Formats: sequence, structure tokens, C-alpha cells
Amino acid sequence: MAQQQSSISDTQIQVLNEALEQGVSPQVSMMLNSLTSADIAHLLESSPPKVRTLIWQLLDKELAAEVLQELGDDLRQFYLEQMNVDEVAALTENIDTDDLADMLQLLPDTITRQVLASMDAQDRHRVEQVLSYPEDTAGGLMNTDMITVRPSNTLDVVFRYLRRHPELPEMTDALLVVNRRDEFIGVLPISKMLTTHPSISVREVMQTDIQAIPASMSANQVALLFERQDLVSAPVIDEEGKLVGRITVDDVVDVIREEGEHSLMSMAGLDEDADTFAPVMKTARSRAIWLGINLLTAFIASAVIGMFQDTIDKVVALAVLMPIVASMGGIAGSQTLTLVIRAMALGQIGQSNVRWLLSRECIVGFLNGCLWAIVVSIAAMLWFKDPIISLVIALAMVANLLVAAIAGAALPLLLKAMRIDPALAGSVILTTVTDVVGFVAFLGLASYFFA
Amino acid sequence: MAQQQSSISDTQIQVLNEALEQGVSPQVSMMLNSLTSADIAHLLESSPPKVRTLIWQLLDKELAAEVLQELGDDLRQFYLEQMNVDEVAALTENIDTDDLADMLQLLPDTITRQVLASMDAQDRHRVEQVLSYPEDTAGGLMNTDMITVRPSNTLDVVFRYLRRHPELPEMTDALLVVNRRDEFIGVLPISKMLTTHPSISVREVMQTDIQAIPASMSANQVALLFERQDLVSAPVIDEEGKLVGRITVDDVVDVIREEGEHSLMSMAGLDEDADTFAPVMKTARSRAIWLGINLLTAFIASAVIGMFQDTIDKVVALAVLMPIVASMGGIAGSQTLTLVIRAMALGQIGQSNVRWLLSRECIVGFLNGCLWAIVVSIAAMLWFKDPIISLVIALAMVANLLVAAIAGAALPLLLKAMRIDPALAGSVILTTVTDVVGFVAFLGLASYFFA
Repeated sequence: MAQQQSSISDTQIQVLNEALEQGVSPQVSMMLNSLTSADIAHLLESSPPKVRTLIWQLLDKELAAEVLQELGDDLRQFYLEQMNVDEVAALTENIDTDDLADMLQLLPDTITRQVLASMDAQDRHRVEQVLSYPEDTAGGLMNTDMITVRPSNTLDVVFRYLRRHPELPEMTDALLVVNRRDEFIGVLPISKMLTTHPSISVREVMQTDIQAIPASMSANQVALLFERQDLVSAPVIDEEGKLVGRITVDDVVDVIREEGEHSLMSMAGLDEDADTFAPVMKTARSRAIWLGINLLTAFIASAVIGMFQDTIDKVVALAVLMPIVASMGGIAGSQTLTLVIRAMALGQIGQSNVRWLLSRECIVGFLNGCLWAIVVSIAAMLWFKDPIISLVIALAMVANLLVAAIAGAALPLLLKAMRIDPALAGSVILTTVTDVVGFVAFLGLASYFFA
Repeated sequence: MAQQQSSISDTQIQVLNEALEQGVSPQVSMMLNSLTSADIAHLLESSPPKVRTLIWQLLDKELAAEVLQELGDDLRQFYLEQMNVDEVAALTENIDTDDLADMLQLLPDTITRQVLASMDAQDRHRVEQVLSYPEDTAGGLMNTDMITVRPSNTLDVVFRYLRRHPELPEMTDALLVVNRRDEFIGVLPISKMLTTHPSISVREVMQTDIQAIPASMSANQVALLFERQDLVSAPVIDEEGKLVGRITVDDVVDVIREEGEHSLMSMAGLDEDADTFAPVMKTARSRAIWLGINLLTAFIASAVIGMFQDTIDKVVALAVLMPIVASMGGIAGSQTLTLVIRAMALGQIGQSNVRWLLSRECIVGFLNGCLWAIVVSIAAMLWFKDPIISLVIALAMVANLLVAAIAGAALPLLLKAMRIDPALAGSVILTTVTDVVGFVAFLGLASYFFA
């Protein structure tokens, strides 16, 4: 459904911020409450904590409820936790079942139960149905608000039926056709209704070659389906083939956005829901863990170097050159890792092509290893005038880029098989591997030749 | 519009691949040509080069044209370049203007001109209109295929008008209302048409509070608009307010997917359109450049270490510990960098909040610097029993994490102001900064104390 499209500009944010800094006035409050809920959510997400508190206080209760639906999980949870049961229950009145389920999942179980108890039986049943599926499945994404018709009706009857609705559920591009047992049997696209004579029956124009989405399908799979088939909405069925809801593209868009952010943020050890303007202590705490893990891996690399102290003591040039081999391995490995992680997200990797991919990466790693080995050995020769150093760094470079390719390609597959998130764990493990191999190869070979 | 939803499974791919390996048979060809174009595109994207060639040869001409529309830029260009002008011209018949414009942009100008010359005047005019806007703007994303109505008509007239169409343009959730000068004045949502009595006029039910999207708006801005307002389609106007096309959510979904991939892939120096199963030489060449750039930055770090050779020669423990400070700086910096890059993509950063963000990052960097400085200095003390080394590494850690925070936050903003892609250049420059500062701080302080 098309809504008001005016969107908040950077200038408006600036003006509002300046006004807020000078204190709260009736003008600021009016200005704020005239914005759309999506714009206010964006404003909140883009504001430091103090400004947020001011904005939240100025918001009309009803608008605040709408804004809550548009916020990211982090901020949404923050505000929900400040509310009491009655306030949360009041929210439930004008909200889609899928959005409500999302919110309830952020709250403690006791609150959720109290809120559910306050709802009428039919609504409660709907929300409980969505809540019964994990959040990242088709069932968790779906909305139970939909219009169903029977195959025997004529379009004319359907038109009259629709006119009795004050409005249609959002993003209704098709009506869903079910039989008497509520089993899904097809869809009736609205565009088809509009281009067909009203005397025709639903059965004659409905599309039956549509496979409904099983409620257990993962959200990522659903997103790929919507992308490949350019869908606006799709029916969801349970194990018995009964129609239980529909998924709309607006929720799929959020899945795709989050998926993209997930890989990016995870590779830096950040949560994709991370609030950009979180307060100092919250940010410091969430970053500290990742730094601690990396400190551990850095100590492993140091321990490896420590084993070759005597050699470094003899030939100090080794200390100067040793980061090069490790760093090049890290870069090459992370290229392979990133490519494989993206390919996995797009569902491109399976049994039939993984061997080819692995061997291609190995050959590419070897070729680039040779290329940069030549460059780096010439540079080292010019710098330190020592053919052994030059040879050692060249050999270590080839070895590390080859290992980096293997690790970069195999790690995400192994981690996925072990149900560990490759985007999160992959880069840490990879750099540990390329550091260790880089230092061992370079310093090990050197201590052999300089022994 | 809902299409056939059966999607290709990994098992099917496996079966097809095995069949292809045993040679081309009529069965394989039939199996392949019975798939949807989206599935064949997915199969091609997931296949090594040899299998691809076989698949492409087996495809029916007409289906191949459809598959081409579903492929990523890299592969699409590969196949387009193998076609002659007549074959490309034959493609233009059953394809949306925006998709056609996308394809023509991949071809050399001479071919594009020949193909345009072969089209009829009206179609050519439409494609040229889309081609006149940069690919990554609303104008480049839009489709010229749409249904417009006049405000004075009754809904009944509109219903009869629609029935004269064999089908509506894809994703038609609203008709566009224009005046006699073709200026956009509002939208008529189809859901509104269905819930209103047919005797009412368009003027009475149309929504006029909709701001059309200017053709020059960037694709990223368009994506944020669609996301925030849950749109299925939106009208596009030129500078004079004339309606020139409409953008549909399927194209926006592609923009969002590409945006997510762009940041992820760019940070590893990869192109977001990169073909996962590109041949060896193509892959090796595209990776080599990035490795070369990183080799240069590694040599800068080495040169810095080289300046302190005498100190390392005296205290070899420094060589063992020095990667720790540099590596922790790199990790901390990349966390800030990633957060800021994502925030910029979401349009969260402006004049009003950038100072707050920068100072929060500095404080967080300092706090985490202190925390891990304590840990690392205790560990170093236990290992080397030297209080000076322990002190030096602690001080260097705090300094480098502080610099990393500043660089991570300021770099993407500076790069963006210089119109350089922060996701691509940011991580290289950042690691150079954190390596240099890490080594200078650690070895510099050490040479001061051990002098």
C-alpha cells in the first residue's frame, strides 16, 4: 500500500536537533509529532542517547506505538522493557500479527504470557500460531491477515465480498483460494481479476501451479524464492497443507537487508542489530569480547615467533620482513573466505561444485603466490642483499598463499557443517591459520638455512 | 505477480551435473528446458565453466533470452558478448524497458546503437529515456510500462478500461493519476478500487499526499524509501513533474541485495558482481591487484620496523611481541570502520551526530585500550620478566586503539567526501595506519627506554 512518501531530510534532522539542544518547546513537539512513524524511527536510530530520551518523551502515546514497530531490535527492546504490561497490551490493538510476535519475542516470558492473556481469543490464537514457529522461518515471518475465497464463486461475488471490507490487508496482490478443509489450492491474482469478465468463476482463472511455502522453510530460503520469482506475497502452509498465513515482500526486504548486514558485521565481530548510537559502556562491553578473542590468537602468533628467537637474534632482517608473509596470507585467505560465504548465502554451493571451487582456489592461490613471491624476493634482495632471505621469503609466500586458499574455502564449509556461523568465526580462525603458517614457514625455513 | 514457485533443489542440481558429466543426452536437454528461467540462471551461476558451456548449448533460444535477464552482470555480459546484433535485437521483443536498458549498458556503444536502430520508434524512445539516466539512479531503475488514468473518470470506467488489457504490468498495486500535461497528481491504489463503489470518481479516492520520486534520486535512497514505507511500486517524475515511469519492489530488492554484498565484498577487495565460479585465470588476475596493493602497505609496515632494527637486535623479545599491538589496532579499527560504513549506507550519519559518534568511538577505544593493555602487560611480564617491555606494550596498546578508533570513524567520512568508496579503500588504509602506529608506538617507546 502506498503511504505518505515525504521522507525526513538531513536538514530537518539538523533543525530538530538544534531545537532539542535549546530545550523542549511546544513547537519542537508539534514538529516531531507531525512526522511519519518511519521517519521518527529513523531519527531515533540516528540520535545519541540524550536526544533519544527527549524525543521519546515528546512523542504522543499512539504514535510511539507505531514508531516501536519500525525500530531495530536493539532499540525496540530498550523501550519495550521500560513499559508495563498494560502499555504493551495497549500496543497490540492495531498491529499485524507478525510484527506483534516479533515484539513479544523480545520480552520476558512472564510479560508475554500476561499480554497474550489480555487479548481476545481469536487474536491470541493467531499470535500464538506465529509464535509457535522460530523467528527465522517462514512461519515466523508470516502474517495471518489475509483474504481467502472458494473456487466455486464467480468473480462478481468476490468483487462484492471485497467491497464489504473497509480496506484490504497490506500488499494484497492476490487472494488465496482454499477448499472446505482450509487446504490451499491456488491463488487468484488481483491483476487477473481486473482483466477478466466478472461472470467467470474463481476456479477458471485461479493459478494452481503455485507451490505454497512450508512454514518450516528458513527465512533465507524464503528471501531467495521472493528474489528469484519477483513475488509480492506468497501463501504459507503447515505440514498438512492447510493455509496458515502469507508472507509479504516488505518483511522479505528486511530479511535481505539483515542478511547482507549480518555477513558484513559478523566478520568484524559485530552484531547486525547493533545500535549505531549505543551508549559508551554498552559499546565498550560488546567490543571487548571480540578484542579478547583476537588477543588470544595474537598471542598464538607470538608464541610461534617466540620459537624462533635465536634465529631472529642472528638475522634481525627476518623480524623486519616477517609480517609481510603473514599479512599477504591473511588478505588472500579473506578474499576466498568472503567469496565462499557470499556464495553460501546465495545457495550456490553444493556437493556438485565444491570440489571444483576448492581446486580453483588452490590454483589461484598458487599462481598469485608465485607472482608475489617473485616481486617480494626481488624487493628483499635489493633491501638486504642476502640471497637466502630472498629465497626463504619467496618459498614462504607461495606456501602461505596456498594454505590461505585452502583454509579460506574449506573453513566456512566446515564451520557450517558444525553449525557455527562462518561469518563470525571464519575470519578469526583464518587469520590465526595464516599468521601461524606464515611465521612458521618463513622463520622455520630461515632457521633451517641459517642454522 | 505470482509465478510458478517450484524451485530447483540441490539434489536436482546434483542429478543434472552427473547427467552432464556422462555426456549430453536428449533426456538431459528435456530436463533442463523444463526448468524456470530463474532456476536455470541459478544453475549457471552455480556451475564451473565447462558445465556452463554444456548447459548454454542445450538451452532453447527463447528460454536462453529469459535466462539472460536473470543472470548477474558478469555472466550476462559474457554471453551477450558472444551474440551478434541480430540475436541481441531478437531479445528486445519480450523484455521490460529497465531490464533491456541494463543489458544494453553492458554492450559496446556500437552494438547498442545498432540494436536501438532495429527497434520501433516508440520502444526505442522508452529505452533511450531509461538509458539517459545513470544506472544507479531512480531513472535507471524505473520501468516505463504503467497504467495511467485521469482524475475525472469514475472507477467503473477504469474497471472497463483495465478489462481491455490482456494483463496488467507486473506488480501493479496502484494506477497512476496524471493531468492533461502528463504531470503526476496522485495514485489510485488497486485495493482502494476494490473496496469502493464503482460510481465514485478517481478524484474522490485517489491519494494526493504521495511525493513522486525524482528520476535523479540515487538507487540507495530509493531503496531506503521503499524499506521505510513498505512500498510495492512508486511513481518517478522528471524535473518538470512529468510522470516518466515507475519503480517496482523487485528491482529494489536487487539494489538492497547488491548494497549488502557491495560492502562485504569490497572490504575484501572483491567486486560484488564477481562470478563465484569464474575460470582460474580471470580469478587470479582480479585478485592479484588487491594483493599487490596490500603488499605495498606491508612493505610500509616493514620499513617502519626496519627503522628500529638496532633496538630489536638488542631486545629480541620485541620482535616476538610486536605483532600483537598492530593486530589489536587493526581489529579495533575495523570494528569502528564497519559500523560507520553500515551507518552511512543506512543514511544514519549527518552533521548533527557525527561529533558524538567520533567522541564515543574515542572513549570506547581508550577504555578497551586500557583493559587489554593491563591484560597484555601482565602476560608479557610473566613471559619475559621485563617490566620495561611490559610497560612499553601497555602504552603502545592504548595509543594504537585510540588511533584505530579515530581512523576507523574518520576515514570513511573523509573518503566519502573525496568520492572514494569507503568499503573498498577503507580497510587497506586503516590497516596501514594501525600497523604503522602500532609498530612506531611499540618499537619507538622501546628504543627510547632501552637506548
